[in-house]
Amino acid sequence: MDERAALRLLEGTLSDAGDDAAVIDGHVLTTDMLHETTDFPDGTTRYTAGWRSVGASLSDVAAMGANAVASVAVYAAPEFDPDDLESFVAGASDVCESVGARYVGGDLDTFEEFTASTTVLGETDDPVLRSGAKPGDALCVTGTLGRSGAALRLFEAGEIERANELFRFEPRVAAGRALAPFATAMMDSSDGLARSVHQLAEASECGFELDGESIPVAESVREVATDADDERDLSLFFGEDFELVFTVPKATVEDAREASPTPISVVGSVTEDGIQLDDEALPDRGYTHGE
Amino acid sequence: MDERAALRLLEGTLSDAGDDAAVIDGHVLTTDMLHETTDFPDGTTRYTAGWRSVGASLSDVAAMGANAVASVAVYAAPEFDPDDLESFVAGASDVCESVGARYVGGDLDTFEEFTASTTVLGETDDPVLRSGAKPGDALCVTGTLGRSGAALRLFEAGEIERANELFRFEPRVAAGRALAPFATAMMDSSDGLARSVHQLAEASECGFELDGESIPVAESVREVATDADDERDLSLFFGEDFELVFTVPKATVEDAREASPTPISVVGSVTEDGIQLDDEALPDRGYTHGE
Repeated sequence: MDERAALRLLEGTLSDAGDDAAVIDGHVLTTDMLHETTDFPDGTTRYTAGWRSVGASLSDVAAMGANAVASVAVYAAPEFDPDDLESFVAGASDVCESVGARYVGGDLDTFEEFTASTTVLGETDDPVLRSGAKPGDALCVTGTLGRSGAALRLFEAGEIERANELFRFEPRVAAGRALAPFATAMMDSSDGLARSVHQLAEASECGFELDGESIPVAESVREVATDADDERDLSLFFGEDFELVFTVPKATVEDAREASPTPISVVGSVTEDGIQLDDEALPDRGYTHGE
Repeated sequence: MDERAALRLLEGTLSDAGDDAAVIDGHVLTTDMLHETTDFPDGTTRYTAGWRSVGASLSDVAAMGANAVASVAVYAAPEFDPDDLESFVAGASDVCESVGARYVGGDLDTFEEFTASTTVLGETDDPVLRSGAKPGDALCVTGTLGRSGAALRLFEAGEIERANELFRFEPRVAAGRALAPFATAMMDSSDGLARSVHQLAEASECGFELDGESIPVAESVREVATDADDERDLSLFFGEDFELVFTVPKATVEDAREASPTPISVVGSVTEDGIQLDDEALPDRGYTHGE
Protein backbone atom coordinates (compact mmCIF):
# COMPACT_ATOMS: atom_id res chain seq x y z
CA MET A 1 0.00 0.00 0.00
CA ASP A 2 1.51 3.37 -0.91
CA GLU A 3 1.49 6.45 1.30
CA ARG A 4 -1.60 7.95 -0.29
CA ALA A 5 -3.64 4.76 -0.08
CA ALA A 6 -2.59 4.46 3.55
CA LEU A 7 -3.65 8.05 4.21
CA ARG A 8 -7.05 7.35 2.71
CA LEU A 9 -7.37 4.32 4.95
CA LEU A 10 -6.65 6.49 7.98
CA GLU A 11 -9.14 9.11 6.91
CA GLY A 12 -11.79 6.44 7.13
CA THR A 13 -10.66 5.47 10.63
CA LEU A 14 -10.05 8.86 12.20
CA SER A 15 -12.80 11.42 12.01
CA ASP A 16 -10.43 14.34 12.53
CA ALA A 17 -7.77 13.33 10.01
CA GLY A 18 -7.55 14.18 6.34
CA ASP A 19 -6.88 17.89 6.31
CA ASP A 20 -3.59 19.76 6.67
CA ALA A 21 -3.96 19.67 10.44
CA ALA A 22 -6.25 18.09 13.00
CA VAL A 23 -8.79 20.35 14.69
CA ILE A 24 -9.91 19.84 18.30
CA ASP A 25 -11.90 22.37 20.31
CA GLY A 26 -10.38 25.45 18.71
CA HIS A 27 -6.91 23.92 18.64
CA VAL A 28 -5.09 22.91 15.50
CA LEU A 29 -2.37 20.29 15.75
CA THR A 30 -0.05 19.08 13.02
CA THR A 31 3.09 16.99 12.83
CA ASP A 32 5.68 16.11 10.15
CA MET A 33 8.89 14.15 9.87
CA LEU A 34 11.81 15.05 7.61
CA HIS A 35 14.94 12.99 6.96
CA GLU A 36 18.43 13.81 5.78
CA THR A 37 18.41 11.44 2.79
CA THR A 38 15.00 12.41 1.44
CA ASP A 39 14.45 15.98 2.53
CA PHE A 40 17.76 17.73 3.14
CA PRO A 41 20.09 17.71 0.11
CA ASP A 42 23.85 17.79 0.63
CA GLY A 43 24.74 21.30 1.63
CA THR A 44 21.59 22.01 3.65
CA THR A 45 22.73 23.72 6.83
CA ARG A 46 21.27 22.71 10.17
CA TYR A 47 19.92 26.24 10.47
CA THR A 48 18.03 25.76 7.21
CA ALA A 49 16.91 22.28 8.34
CA GLY A 50 15.50 23.71 11.57
CA TRP A 51 13.78 26.53 9.72
CA ARG A 52 12.39 24.29 7.02
CA SER A 53 11.15 21.41 9.14
CA VAL A 54 9.33 23.62 11.63
CA GLY A 55 8.23 25.78 8.70
CA ALA A 56 6.53 22.79 7.06
CA SER A 57 4.35 22.32 10.13
CA LEU A 58 3.69 26.05 10.41
CA SER A 59 2.52 25.90 6.80
CA ASP A 60 -0.05 23.24 7.70
CA VAL A 61 -1.40 25.51 10.42
CA ALA A 62 -1.46 28.40 7.93
CA ALA A 63 -3.46 26.22 5.54
CA MET A 64 -6.20 25.89 8.18
CA GLY A 65 -6.40 29.68 8.45
CA ALA A 66 -5.21 29.35 12.02
CA ASN A 67 -2.95 31.34 14.24
CA ALA A 68 0.36 29.61 15.06
CA VAL A 69 1.05 29.43 18.80
CA ALA A 70 4.00 27.17 19.49
CA SER A 71 6.24 24.47 18.11
CA VAL A 72 8.19 21.53 19.48
CA ALA A 73 10.54 19.20 17.62
CA VAL A 74 12.45 15.99 18.06
CA TYR A 75 16.02 16.31 16.80
CA ALA A 76 17.35 12.84 16.04
CA ALA A 77 20.95 12.32 14.95
CA PRO A 78 23.80 9.84 15.33
CA GLU A 79 25.62 12.35 17.52
CA PHE A 80 24.94 15.74 18.99
CA ASP A 81 27.37 18.31 17.73
CA PRO A 82 26.74 21.47 19.81
CA ASP A 83 27.07 23.78 16.80
CA ASP A 84 24.68 21.69 14.70
CA LEU A 85 22.17 21.52 17.48
CA GLU A 86 22.31 25.22 18.24
CA SER A 87 21.98 26.03 14.53
CA PHE A 88 18.93 23.81 14.22
CA VAL A 89 17.30 25.43 17.24
CA ALA A 90 18.15 28.90 15.94
CA GLY A 91 16.50 28.08 12.59
CA ALA A 92 13.46 26.60 14.31
CA SER A 93 13.20 29.59 16.65
CA ASP A 94 13.64 32.13 13.87
CA VAL A 95 10.96 30.65 11.62
CA CYS A 96 8.57 30.61 14.59
CA GLU A 97 9.40 34.20 15.40
CA SER A 98 8.77 35.19 11.77
CA VAL A 99 5.12 34.17 12.18
CA GLY A 100 4.60 35.25 15.80
CA ALA A 101 4.84 31.74 17.28
CA ARG A 102 7.26 30.37 19.86
CA TYR A 103 9.66 27.47 19.53
CA VAL A 104 9.48 25.89 22.96
CA GLY A 105 11.83 22.93 22.68
CA GLY A 106 11.28 19.25 22.34
CA ASP A 107 13.38 16.17 22.61
CA LEU A 108 16.61 14.61 21.43
CA ASP A 109 17.03 11.14 20.14
CA THR A 110 20.09 9.14 19.16
CA PHE A 111 19.41 7.79 15.68
CA GLU A 112 21.48 6.70 12.71
CA GLU A 113 20.09 9.31 10.32
CA PHE A 114 19.52 12.98 10.98
CA THR A 115 15.74 13.25 11.30
CA ALA A 116 13.56 16.10 12.48
CA SER A 117 10.04 15.54 13.67
CA THR A 118 8.11 18.74 14.21
CA THR A 119 4.79 19.70 15.72
CA VAL A 120 2.95 22.98 15.64
CA LEU A 121 0.02 24.01 17.79
CA GLY A 122 -2.34 26.58 16.34
CA GLU A 123 -5.63 28.14 17.27
CA THR A 124 -8.74 29.01 15.34
CA ASP A 125 -12.45 28.95 15.97
CA ASP A 126 -13.19 28.72 12.29
CA PRO A 127 -10.80 26.41 10.45
CA VAL A 128 -10.73 26.44 6.65
CA LEU A 129 -11.01 22.88 5.37
CA ARG A 130 -10.21 21.39 1.98
CA SER A 131 -13.80 20.54 1.39
CA GLY A 132 -15.68 23.79 0.73
CA ALA A 133 -14.78 24.71 -2.88
CA LYS A 134 -17.86 25.50 -5.01
CA PRO A 135 -18.16 25.58 -8.81
CA GLY A 136 -17.66 29.15 -9.92
CA ASP A 137 -15.14 29.98 -7.18
CA ALA A 138 -11.75 31.32 -8.22
CA LEU A 139 -8.69 29.12 -7.63
CA CYS A 140 -5.80 31.12 -6.19
CA VAL A 141 -2.28 30.68 -4.86
CA THR A 142 -0.10 32.87 -2.67
CA GLY A 143 3.40 33.93 -3.73
CA THR A 144 5.23 32.08 -6.46
CA LEU A 145 5.83 28.41 -7.22
CA GLY A 146 8.91 26.34 -7.91
CA ARG A 147 11.30 27.85 -5.41
CA SER A 148 12.16 24.54 -3.71
CA GLY A 149 12.67 22.78 -7.03
CA ALA A 150 15.03 25.57 -8.03
CA ALA A 151 16.83 25.26 -4.71
CA LEU A 152 17.42 21.56 -5.35
CA ARG A 153 19.05 22.36 -8.70
CA LEU A 154 21.24 24.94 -6.98
CA PHE A 155 22.28 22.44 -4.28
CA GLU A 156 23.27 20.06 -7.09
CA ALA A 157 25.21 22.83 -8.80
CA GLY A 158 27.07 23.64 -5.60
CA GLU A 159 25.47 27.06 -5.14
CA ILE A 160 24.94 26.23 -1.52
CA GLU A 161 24.32 29.61 0.04
CA ARG A 162 21.68 30.66 -2.45
CA ALA A 163 20.09 27.20 -2.31
CA ASN A 164 19.83 27.39 1.48
CA GLU A 165 18.25 30.81 1.20
CA LEU A 166 15.59 29.52 -1.21
CA PHE A 167 14.98 26.54 1.04
CA ARG A 168 14.05 28.82 3.95
CA PHE A 169 10.54 29.69 2.86
CA GLU A 170 8.22 32.05 4.70
CA PRO A 171 5.28 30.12 6.17
CA ARG A 172 2.07 31.82 5.06
CA VAL A 173 0.51 32.09 8.49
CA ALA A 174 -0.40 35.77 8.21
CA ALA A 175 -1.82 35.23 4.72
CA GLY A 176 -3.77 32.19 5.90
CA ARG A 177 -5.33 34.23 8.70
CA ALA A 178 -6.16 37.09 6.37
CA LEU A 179 -7.62 34.79 3.72
CA ALA A 180 -9.64 32.63 6.10
CA PRO A 181 -12.76 34.82 6.04
CA PHE A 182 -12.85 34.57 2.23
CA ALA A 183 -11.55 31.09 1.48
CA THR A 184 -14.06 28.31 0.81
CA ALA A 185 -11.28 25.67 0.75
CA MET A 186 -7.56 25.85 1.44
CA MET A 187 -4.45 23.68 1.72
CA ASP A 188 -0.74 24.16 1.24
CA SER A 189 1.19 23.29 -1.89
CA SER A 190 3.63 20.93 -0.19
CA ASP A 191 3.04 18.22 -2.81
CA GLY A 192 2.98 20.64 -5.73
CA LEU A 193 0.16 22.65 -7.30
CA ALA A 194 -1.02 19.78 -9.50
CA ARG A 195 -1.44 17.33 -6.65
CA SER A 196 -2.90 20.01 -4.37
CA VAL A 197 -5.60 20.74 -6.90
CA HIS A 198 -6.40 17.04 -7.17
CA GLN A 199 -6.64 16.80 -3.38
CA LEU A 200 -8.93 19.85 -3.17
CA ALA A 201 -11.07 18.36 -5.94
CA GLU A 202 -11.39 15.09 -4.06
CA ALA A 203 -12.25 16.75 -0.75
CA SER A 204 -14.65 19.27 -2.27
CA GLU A 205 -16.09 16.92 -4.90
CA CYS A 206 -15.51 19.40 -7.67
CA GLY A 207 -13.31 19.95 -10.70
CA PHE A 208 -10.81 22.65 -11.67
CA GLU A 209 -9.81 24.51 -14.80
CA LEU A 210 -6.36 26.08 -14.65
CA ASP A 211 -4.86 28.71 -16.87
CA GLY A 212 -1.17 27.95 -17.48
CA GLU A 213 -0.27 31.54 -18.30
CA SER A 214 -1.43 32.81 -14.92
CA ILE A 215 0.60 30.40 -12.78
CA PRO A 216 3.10 32.52 -10.84
CA VAL A 217 6.47 30.93 -11.56
CA ALA A 218 9.28 31.87 -9.17
CA GLU A 219 12.09 33.95 -10.63
CA SER A 220 14.54 31.34 -9.33
CA VAL A 221 12.86 28.71 -11.53
CA ARG A 222 13.50 30.81 -14.62
CA GLU A 223 17.16 30.98 -13.58
CA VAL A 224 17.64 27.21 -13.38
CA ALA A 225 15.13 25.68 -15.80
CA THR A 226 16.58 24.12 -18.94
CA ASP A 227 13.48 24.79 -21.08
CA ALA A 228 9.78 25.55 -20.89
CA ASP A 229 8.84 21.94 -20.03
CA ASP A 230 11.34 21.90 -17.22
CA GLU A 231 10.02 25.21 -15.93
CA ARG A 232 6.52 23.79 -15.96
CA ASP A 233 7.66 20.67 -14.12
CA LEU A 234 9.38 22.63 -11.39
CA SER A 235 6.51 25.03 -10.83
CA LEU A 236 3.55 22.67 -11.23
CA PHE A 237 4.72 19.29 -9.99
CA PHE A 238 7.77 19.59 -7.78
CA GLY A 239 6.05 21.10 -4.78
CA GLU A 240 7.59 21.65 -1.36
CA ASP A 241 6.92 25.35 -1.81
CA PHE A 242 4.48 25.69 1.04
CA GLU A 243 2.38 28.32 -0.63
CA LEU A 244 -1.36 28.36 0.02
CA VAL A 245 -3.70 26.96 -2.63
CA PHE A 246 -7.26 28.12 -2.03
CA THR A 247 -10.62 28.94 -3.50
CA VAL A 248 -12.71 32.07 -2.97
CA PRO A 249 -16.02 33.20 -4.45
CA LYS A 250 -15.18 35.26 -7.54
CA ALA A 251 -16.90 38.32 -6.12
CA THR A 252 -14.49 38.43 -3.17
CA VAL A 253 -11.20 37.99 -5.04
CA GLU A 254 -10.30 41.66 -4.83
CA ASP A 255 -11.16 41.87 -1.14
CA ALA A 256 -9.05 38.77 -0.49
CA ARG A 257 -6.18 40.27 -2.48
CA GLU A 258 -6.35 43.44 -0.45
CA ALA A 259 -6.51 41.58 2.86
CA SER A 260 -3.56 39.27 2.16
CA PRO A 261 -0.06 40.45 3.15
CA THR A 262 1.31 38.11 0.45
CA PRO A 263 0.42 38.72 -3.20
CA ILE A 264 -2.12 36.26 -4.55
CA SER A 265 -2.69 35.04 -8.11
CA VAL A 266 -5.89 33.72 -9.62
CA VAL A 267 -4.81 30.61 -11.54
CA GLY A 268 -8.14 29.13 -12.55
CA SER A 269 -11.62 28.36 -11.38
CA VAL A 270 -13.68 25.63 -9.77
CA THR A 271 -15.80 23.50 -12.11
CA GLU A 272 -18.23 20.64 -11.65
CA ASP A 273 -15.68 17.94 -12.43
CA GLY A 274 -12.48 17.08 -14.26
CA ILE A 275 -9.11 18.75 -13.73
CA GLN A 276 -7.76 20.59 -16.73
CA LEU A 277 -4.85 22.87 -17.48
CA ASP A 278 -5.31 24.88 -20.67
CA ASP A 279 -7.94 22.36 -21.78
CA GLU A 280 -5.76 19.32 -21.23
CA ALA A 281 -6.07 16.87 -18.32
CA LEU A 282 -3.69 17.83 -15.53
CA PRO A 283 -2.02 14.66 -14.19
CA ASP A 284 -2.19 13.86 -10.48
CA ARG A 285 1.55 13.78 -10.14
CA GLY A 286 3.78 15.37 -7.57
CA TYR A 287 6.55 14.93 -5.16
CA THR A 288 6.07 12.09 -2.71
CA HIS A 289 8.40 11.99 0.24
CA GLY A 290 10.80 9.11 0.33
CA GLU A 291 10.33 8.02 -3.24
CA MET B 1 28.32 15.41 23.28
CA ASP B 2 25.90 12.88 24.75
CA GLU B 3 22.12 13.26 24.86
CA ARG B 4 22.04 14.64 28.39
CA ALA B 5 24.76 17.21 27.77
CA ALA B 6 22.90 18.26 24.64
CA LEU B 7 19.67 18.59 26.60
CA ARG B 8 21.41 20.82 29.11
CA LEU B 9 22.71 22.96 26.28
CA LEU B 10 19.16 23.37 24.98
CA GLU B 11 17.80 24.25 28.39
CA GLY B 12 20.16 27.22 28.37
CA THR B 13 18.92 28.28 24.93
CA LEU B 14 15.18 27.76 25.28
CA SER B 15 13.42 29.30 28.22
CA ASP B 16 10.52 26.87 28.06
CA ALA B 17 12.50 23.64 27.73
CA GLY B 18 13.81 21.41 30.48
CA ASP B 19 10.68 19.93 32.01
CA ASP B 20 8.63 16.92 30.90
CA ALA B 21 6.65 19.16 28.55
CA ALA B 22 6.77 22.74 27.34
CA VAL B 23 4.21 25.15 28.76
CA ILE B 24 2.71 28.03 26.74
CA ASP B 25 -0.30 30.05 27.81
CA GLY B 26 -2.11 27.24 29.58
CA HIS B 27 -1.12 24.71 26.92
CA VAL B 28 1.28 21.87 27.48
CA LEU B 29 3.07 20.39 24.47
CA THR B 30 5.36 17.38 24.37
CA THR B 31 6.90 15.20 21.69
CA ASP B 32 8.85 11.93 21.58
CA MET B 33 10.32 9.60 18.98
CA LEU B 34 10.56 5.82 19.31
CA HIS B 35 12.32 3.40 16.96
CA GLU B 36 11.97 -0.26 16.21
CA THR B 37 15.59 -1.19 16.99
CA THR B 38 15.87 0.71 20.27
CA ASP B 39 12.36 0.85 21.68
CA PHE B 40 10.26 -2.01 20.33
CA PRO B 41 11.74 -5.46 21.03
CA ASP B 42 11.02 -8.33 18.64
CA GLY B 43 7.48 -9.42 19.29
CA THR B 44 6.07 -5.97 20.04
CA THR B 45 2.79 -5.71 18.17
CA ARG B 46 1.92 -2.58 16.25
CA TYR B 47 -1.04 -2.16 18.60
CA THR B 48 1.33 -2.13 21.55
CA ALA B 49 3.70 0.21 19.68
CA GLY B 50 0.86 2.67 19.06
CA TRP B 51 -0.29 2.45 22.65
CA ARG B 52 3.20 2.79 24.08
CA SER B 53 4.52 5.59 21.90
CA VAL B 54 1.48 7.82 22.38
CA GLY B 55 1.42 6.71 26.04
CA ALA B 56 4.97 8.01 26.53
CA SER B 57 3.86 11.50 25.47
CA LEU B 58 0.68 11.27 27.56
CA SER B 59 2.91 10.43 30.50
CA ASP B 60 4.85 13.67 29.99
CA VAL B 61 1.59 15.61 30.10
CA ALA B 62 0.60 13.68 33.24
CA ALA B 63 3.90 14.66 34.82
CA MET B 64 2.97 18.34 34.44
CA GLY B 65 -0.29 17.71 36.31
CA ALA B 66 -2.11 18.62 33.10
CA ASN B 67 -5.20 17.39 31.38
CA ALA B 68 -4.53 15.50 28.13
CA VAL B 69 -6.52 16.87 25.18
CA ALA B 70 -5.31 15.33 21.95
CA SER B 71 -2.52 13.45 20.26
CA VAL B 72 -1.03 13.25 16.78
CA ALA B 73 1.70 10.94 15.52
CA VAL B 74 3.95 10.36 12.55
CA TYR B 75 4.03 6.69 11.56
CA ALA B 76 7.19 6.06 9.56
CA ALA B 77 7.87 2.66 8.01
CA PRO B 78 9.45 1.10 4.92
CA GLU B 79 5.98 0.09 3.73
CA PHE B 80 2.42 0.57 4.87
CA ASP B 81 0.76 -2.70 5.65
CA PRO B 82 -2.93 -1.90 6.22
CA ASP B 83 -3.21 -4.26 9.21
CA ASP B 84 -0.09 -2.85 10.85
CA LEU B 85 -1.24 0.68 10.34
CA GLU B 86 -4.75 0.06 11.63
CA SER B 87 -3.33 -1.76 14.66
CA PHE B 88 -1.02 1.15 15.43
CA VAL B 89 -3.88 3.63 15.16
CA ALA B 90 -6.10 1.42 17.31
CA GLY B 91 -3.42 1.28 20.03
CA ALA B 92 -2.86 5.03 19.82
CA SER B 93 -6.60 5.70 19.94
CA ASP B 94 -7.21 3.31 22.83
CA VAL B 95 -4.48 4.74 25.04
CA CYS B 96 -5.87 8.23 24.39
CA GLU B 97 -9.36 7.08 25.21
CA SER B 98 -8.11 5.51 28.46
CA VAL B 99 -7.15 8.98 29.69
CA GLY B 100 -10.00 10.96 28.15
CA ALA B 101 -7.94 12.39 25.27
CA ARG B 102 -8.47 12.03 21.52
CA TYR B 103 -6.12 10.60 18.93
CA VAL B 104 -6.69 12.87 15.98
CA GLY B 105 -4.31 11.52 13.35
CA GLY B 106 -1.02 12.70 12.03
CA ASP B 107 1.18 11.86 9.13
CA LEU B 108 2.80 8.95 7.31
CA ASP B 109 6.35 8.81 6.19
CA THR B 110 8.26 6.27 4.11
CA PHE B 111 11.35 5.40 6.09
CA GLU B 112 13.71 2.46 6.35
CA GLU B 113 13.03 1.76 10.03
CA PHE B 114 9.66 1.67 11.77
CA THR B 115 9.63 4.89 13.79
CA ALA B 116 6.83 6.60 15.66
CA SER B 117 6.96 10.24 16.56
CA THR B 118 4.20 11.32 18.89
CA THR B 119 2.89 14.60 20.22
CA VAL B 120 0.39 15.28 22.95
CA LEU B 121 -1.37 18.53 23.68
CA GLY B 122 -2.47 19.12 27.26
CA GLU B 123 -3.98 21.93 29.26
CA THR B 124 -3.33 23.31 32.70
CA ASP B 125 -3.28 26.71 34.31
CA ASP B 126 -0.99 25.52 37.04
CA PRO B 127 1.72 23.15 35.77
CA VAL B 128 3.78 21.18 38.25
CA LEU B 129 7.46 21.63 37.44
CA ARG B 130 10.49 19.61 38.48
CA SER B 131 11.87 22.51 40.44
CA GLY B 132 9.71 22.90 43.56
CA ALA B 133 10.87 20.11 45.91
CA LYS B 134 11.69 21.39 49.44
CA PRO B 135 13.76 19.68 52.14
CA GLY B 136 11.39 17.83 54.44
CA ASP B 137 8.94 16.93 51.62
CA ALA B 138 8.09 13.28 51.11
CA LEU B 139 9.31 11.58 47.91
CA CYS B 140 6.58 9.44 46.36
CA VAL B 141 5.88 7.32 43.30
CA THR B 142 2.65 6.08 41.76
CA GLY B 143 2.03 2.41 41.04
CA THR B 144 4.91 -0.04 40.90
CA LEU B 145 8.30 -0.02 39.21
CA GLY B 146 10.11 -2.41 36.92
CA ARG B 147 7.25 -3.50 34.70
CA SER B 148 8.97 -2.53 31.42
CA GLY B 149 12.21 -4.19 32.45
CA ALA B 150 10.25 -7.33 33.20
CA ALA B 151 8.49 -7.06 29.85
CA LEU B 152 11.84 -6.96 28.07
CA ARG B 153 12.89 -10.20 29.79
CA LEU B 154 9.60 -11.78 28.73
CA PHE B 155 10.08 -10.67 25.12
CA GLU B 156 13.51 -12.31 25.22
CA ALA B 157 11.99 -15.46 26.68
CA GLY B 158 9.37 -15.59 23.94
CA GLU B 159 6.43 -14.88 26.25
CA ILE B 160 5.15 -12.40 23.74
CA GLU B 161 1.56 -11.92 24.77
CA ARG B 162 2.31 -11.26 28.42
CA ALA B 163 5.24 -9.02 27.43
CA ASN B 164 3.00 -6.93 25.18
CA GLU B 165 0.49 -6.62 27.98
CA LEU B 166 3.13 -5.32 30.38
CA PHE B 167 4.41 -2.93 27.72
CA ARG B 168 1.00 -1.26 27.49
CA PHE B 169 1.21 0.88 30.58
CA GLU B 170 -1.54 3.15 31.83
CA PRO B 171 -0.48 6.79 31.53
CA ARG B 172 -0.98 8.46 34.90
CA VAL B 173 -2.96 11.42 33.63
CA ALA B 174 -5.76 11.13 36.21
CA ALA B 175 -3.25 10.66 39.02
CA GLY B 176 -1.21 13.63 37.79
CA ARG B 177 -4.31 15.83 37.83
CA ALA B 178 -5.29 14.62 41.29
CA LEU B 179 -1.79 15.06 42.70
CA ALA B 180 -1.12 18.47 41.12
CA PRO B 181 -2.62 20.48 44.01
CA PHE B 182 -0.30 18.69 46.45
CA ALA B 183 2.89 18.09 44.47
CA THR B 184 5.80 20.51 44.90
CA ALA B 185 7.74 18.83 42.06
CA MET B 186 6.85 16.06 39.63
CA MET B 187 8.20 14.16 36.62
CA ASP B 188 7.74 10.74 35.12
CA SER B 189 10.01 7.78 35.67
CA SER B 190 10.78 7.20 32.00
CA ASP B 191 14.54 7.02 32.70
CA GLY B 192 14.16 5.00 35.88
CA LEU B 193 13.64 6.04 39.50
CA ALA B 194 17.35 6.61 40.16
CA ARG B 195 17.83 9.01 37.27
CA SER B 196 14.48 10.71 37.91
CA VAL B 197 15.53 11.48 41.46
CA HIS B 198 18.82 12.92 40.19
CA GLN B 199 16.92 15.09 37.72
CA LEU B 200 14.51 16.33 40.38
CA ALA B 201 17.48 17.06 42.67
CA GLU B 202 19.18 19.09 39.94
CA ALA B 203 16.04 21.07 39.08
CA SER B 204 15.02 21.66 42.70
CA GLU B 205 18.57 22.10 44.04
CA CYS B 206 18.00 19.60 46.80
CA GLY B 207 19.02 16.11 47.86
CA PHE B 208 17.09 12.88 48.47
CA GLU B 209 17.18 10.03 50.93
CA LEU B 210 15.50 6.85 49.69
CA ASP B 211 14.43 3.83 51.66
CA GLY B 212 15.04 0.67 49.63
CA GLU B 213 12.44 -1.37 51.49
CA SER B 214 9.62 0.99 50.56
CA ILE B 215 10.23 1.00 46.80
CA PRO B 216 7.17 -0.60 45.19
CA VAL B 217 8.57 -3.37 43.00
CA ALA B 218 6.19 -4.71 40.33
CA GLU B 219 5.04 -8.28 40.80
CA SER B 220 6.25 -9.01 37.26
CA VAL B 221 9.80 -8.09 38.31
CA ARG B 222 9.74 -10.70 41.06
CA GLU B 223 8.66 -13.23 38.44
CA VAL B 224 11.61 -12.60 36.11
CA ALA B 225 14.46 -11.38 38.33
CA THR B 226 17.36 -13.79 38.81
CA ASP B 227 18.29 -12.49 42.28
CA ALA B 228 17.92 -9.49 44.60
CA ASP B 229 20.50 -7.40 42.73
CA ASP B 230 18.73 -8.03 39.46
CA GLU B 231 15.41 -7.09 41.01
CA ARG B 232 16.92 -3.86 42.26
CA ASP B 233 18.37 -3.11 38.82
CA LEU B 234 15.07 -3.65 37.08
CA SER B 235 13.04 -1.57 39.50
CA LEU B 236 15.49 1.25 40.20
CA PHE B 237 17.49 1.75 37.04
CA PHE B 238 15.72 0.27 34.04
CA GLY B 239 12.97 2.82 33.79
CA GLU B 240 10.47 3.13 30.95
CA ASP B 241 7.72 2.57 33.49
CA PHE B 242 6.10 5.95 33.12
CA GLU B 243 5.04 6.20 36.72
CA LEU B 244 4.99 9.61 38.39
CA VAL B 245 7.84 10.54 40.73
CA PHE B 246 6.88 13.50 42.89
CA THR B 247 7.33 15.32 46.15
CA VAL B 248 4.65 16.56 48.54
CA PRO B 249 4.85 18.25 51.95
CA LYS B 250 4.79 15.47 54.56
CA ALA B 251 1.62 16.86 56.14
CA THR B 252 -0.32 16.33 52.90
CA VAL B 253 0.78 12.78 52.07
CA GLU B 254 -2.45 11.23 53.30
CA ASP B 255 -4.60 13.77 51.44
CA ALA B 256 -2.61 13.12 48.28
CA ARG B 257 -3.00 9.38 48.76
CA GLU B 258 -6.73 9.76 49.11
CA ALA B 259 -7.02 12.02 46.07
CA SER B 260 -5.00 9.80 43.73
CA PRO B 261 -6.84 7.14 41.73
CA THR B 262 -3.54 5.22 41.56
CA PRO B 263 -1.93 3.94 44.78
CA ILE B 264 1.09 5.96 45.84
CA SER B 265 4.12 4.93 47.88
CA VAL B 266 6.35 7.15 49.99
CA VAL B 267 9.87 6.04 49.08
CA GLY B 268 11.97 8.64 50.87
CA SER B 269 12.29 12.29 51.61
CA VAL B 270 13.85 15.48 50.33
CA THR B 271 17.11 16.58 51.95
CA GLU B 272 19.45 19.54 51.56
CA ASP B 273 21.86 17.68 49.30
CA GLY B 274 23.28 14.31 48.30
CA ILE B 275 21.30 11.41 46.92
CA GLN B 276 21.31 8.32 49.06
CA LEU B 277 19.57 4.98 49.11
CA ASP B 278 19.74 3.22 52.47
CA ASP B 279 22.69 5.48 53.42
CA GLU B 280 24.68 4.70 50.29
CA ALA B 281 25.13 7.02 47.32
CA LEU B 282 22.55 6.24 44.62
CA PRO B 283 24.26 6.33 41.21
CA ASP B 284 22.88 8.54 38.45
CA ARG B 285 22.42 5.65 36.13
CA GLY B 286 19.47 4.69 33.98
CA TYR B 287 18.23 3.70 30.64
CA THR B 288 19.27 6.02 27.84
CA HIS B 289 17.47 5.61 24.55
CA GLY B 290 19.56 4.42 21.70
CA GLU B 291 22.45 3.17 23.77
